[in-house]
Amino acid sequence: MQLKIALLGGDGIGPEVLAQSVKCLKAIEETFNHRFEFVEAPFGAIAMTGSGRPLPDETLALCQEADAILFGAIGALDYDNNPEAKVRPEQGLLRLRKELGLFASIRPIKMFPAFLENSPLKRNIVDHTDLVIFRELTGGIYFGKKTLSEDGTTASDLCSYSESEISRIAHLAFKAAKKRRKKVTLVDKANVLESSRLWRKTVTNIAQSYPDISFECLFIDNAAVQMMLNPRQFDVILTDNMFGDILSDQGSVILGSVGLLPSASVGLENAMFEPFHGSYPQAKGKNIANPVASILSSAMLLQHFGLDEEANAIVAAVHKSFVKKVVTTDVLGSSKYGTDYVGDFISENIVESD
Amino acid sequence: MQLKIALLGGDGIGPEVLAQSVKCLKAIEETFNHRFEFVEAPFGAIAMTGSGRPLPDETLALCQEADAILFGAIGALDYDNNPEAKVRPEQGLLRLRKELGLFASIRPIKMFPAFLENSPLKRNIVDHTDLVIFRELTGGIYFGKKTLSEDGTTASDLCSYSESEISRIAHLAFKAAKKRRKKVTLVDKANVLESSRLWRKTVTNIAQSYPDISFECLFIDNAAVQMMLNPRQFDVILTDNMFGDILSDQGSVILGSVGLLPSASVGLENAMFEPFHGSYPQAKGKNIANPVASILSSAMLLQHFGLDEEANAIVAAVHKSFVKKVVTTDVLGSSKYGTDYVGDFISENIVESD
Ligand SMILES: [Mg+2]
Ligand SMILES: [Mg+2]
Repeated sequence: MQLKIALLGGDGIGPEVLAQSVKCLKAIEETFNHRFEFVEAPFGAIAMTGSGRPLPDETLALCQEADAILFGAIGALDYDNNPEAKVRPEQGLLRLRKELGLFASIRPIKMFPAFLENSPLKRNIVDHTDLVIFRELTGGIYFGKKTLSEDGTTASDLCSYSESEISRIAHLAFKAAKKRRKKVTLVDKANVLESSRLWRKTVTNIAQSYPDISFECLFIDNAAVQMMLNPRQFDVILTDNMFGDILSDQGSVILGSVGLLPSASVGLENAMFEPFHGSYPQAKGKNIANPVASILSSAMLLQHFGLDEEANAIVAAVHKSFVKKVVTTDVLGSSKYGTDYVGDFISENIVESD
Repeated sequence: MQLKIALLGGDGIGPEVLAQSVKCLKAIEETFNHRFEFVEAPFGAIAMTGSGRPLPDETLALCQEADAILFGAIGALDYDNNPEAKVRPEQGLLRLRKELGLFASIRPIKMFPAFLENSPLKRNIVDHTDLVIFRELTGGIYFGKKTLSEDGTTASDLCSYSESEISRIAHLAFKAAKKRRKKVTLVDKANVLESSRLWRKTVTNIAQSYPDISFECLFIDNAAVQMMLNPRQFDVILTDNMFGDILSDQGSVILGSVGLLPSASVGLENAMFEPFHGSYPQAKGKNIANPVASILSSAMLLQHFGLDEEANAIVAAVHKSFVKKVVTTDVLGSSKYGTDYVGDFISENIVESD
């Protein structure tokens, strides 16, 4: 297969972990005889230094034209700590998702037996956790109209959803549940929010056309509680943009490291694959970032194009790194391996299964 | 001291747990020679059956005139599961807070050594957790303008904050921190939301007038993570209405039971005391609800009026119930004690310390 893959390293540890994914995809190319063309483009705070804009036009054009996008991370301390900054790196990511119509963020959270002890939650609670969060990604309060009064004393954000925004991701979630344990949990705040009531009404209707899928609803505050008390109860979680942000970050803690979790952002015509974690600017350049989340996201990329055997080869190499304890210090404090070494190990252990 | 206390039992297990608090306050009356006048009033779904309104005028008038309010819980399954319902019980609570100007919800989360093993989090993570959440209670998206398009296909909620709404609760939080471990953490989503940026700017300014208090900011998604990884890092958490809802419910899980946590809602002229937990309609009338959260909230009521010795007498009796294992099954599965029995035990063990 021939694929053109846009590489957006972004900020902080983004470029470092992305480089390890590229090693793995190059190993896949050789081992399985594919042709991947990689094209790098500036994105995030790093792009603002040149153009003043976190998503330059050329980067957007490349992403539109590429078959898939591998993305690192976005965000820099300079902007986080400055409430006066007019343009923020994160706006680039929001705009990219919007322009490409990447309306669904898909975030699998699956416990690795090797890291059971790393979880802050007790073993009996997290063992066998295997859930996936479908987070709406281009609507809701993150994209609603924002206002700041002229005297700067009042500010507002609008959370708005339409039935069509809700139903397109709801169908994805129910379809995914069909191939899994056949359960969808909608998370909202329908006892208080009008937009949540529209979610509940719309999804409850859609659920009727998937009679083999069991369907339940939870309020976000209760869902945040259940994620700590009994994450195994969840199969597919469906939720809006902000609730999905909170819940998926919270869910990622279950594994004891945000460095292990991949994610995909998909739309009708484009798909982007990225680690779950943020730009972690404090770790930038220190060769300590865990590349596994990024590497597993490249496996999701391969899967997206039907290259299941290839995706499994990456996952198998990652598992080998766990077994051999070739991991970064976030998952094993005593480890002496850095980002690069772990990336080398995994990419060198990618083999065709027989 | 003479106090007129409005009793709003509300829905679900509310009336049952409230009744135990009243037993304790009556014991305080006798033991310490005070005069408490208790006046009950309908509130929530139960009030809607009669008047169609969750907060009848007479109930509001009573609350305005009383010295303090003891409240049970609100919300019923009939309404939760019906997205078409025009009026919801929760609207009564929102309106009551608004009418009384109860702008700050104060939610202490303190680990009890007796229940360390009950936490879903590992012992070394939760031991010595002692934090308090200041949640803004009358502004933000729960109270913003709501719209539903005529064809019912688009819905919206507005999240709006003013500088004055932010600063009045911020000052409460900083003052509380002075008497504690001298740290305030603001939780917001300033990288995406305009209202959060106003919070960050306003609170950062206020922090400068409390030079002995250390001040830091966290994004809500990261805060939800930190609450699971290292809750001990927090002293006073300051946040908006919705983030406070999620974070405090999540924080409550640390103790392994939402049945142990009291809370207060305070304004300039009124104060209401209530258990942290909801109406738990599934448990209604089964005599299994944990009354401790409600009982500890009556201790917060006494403290509010400077009756520290009396408040401590309640807390001491609660601790005795823990030591003697006179607890409900939510905190000790093998317990055979019900709501009433636990309430009797605690109220009968309220004594003057010497
Ligand atoms: Mg996040
Ligand atoms: Mg809540």
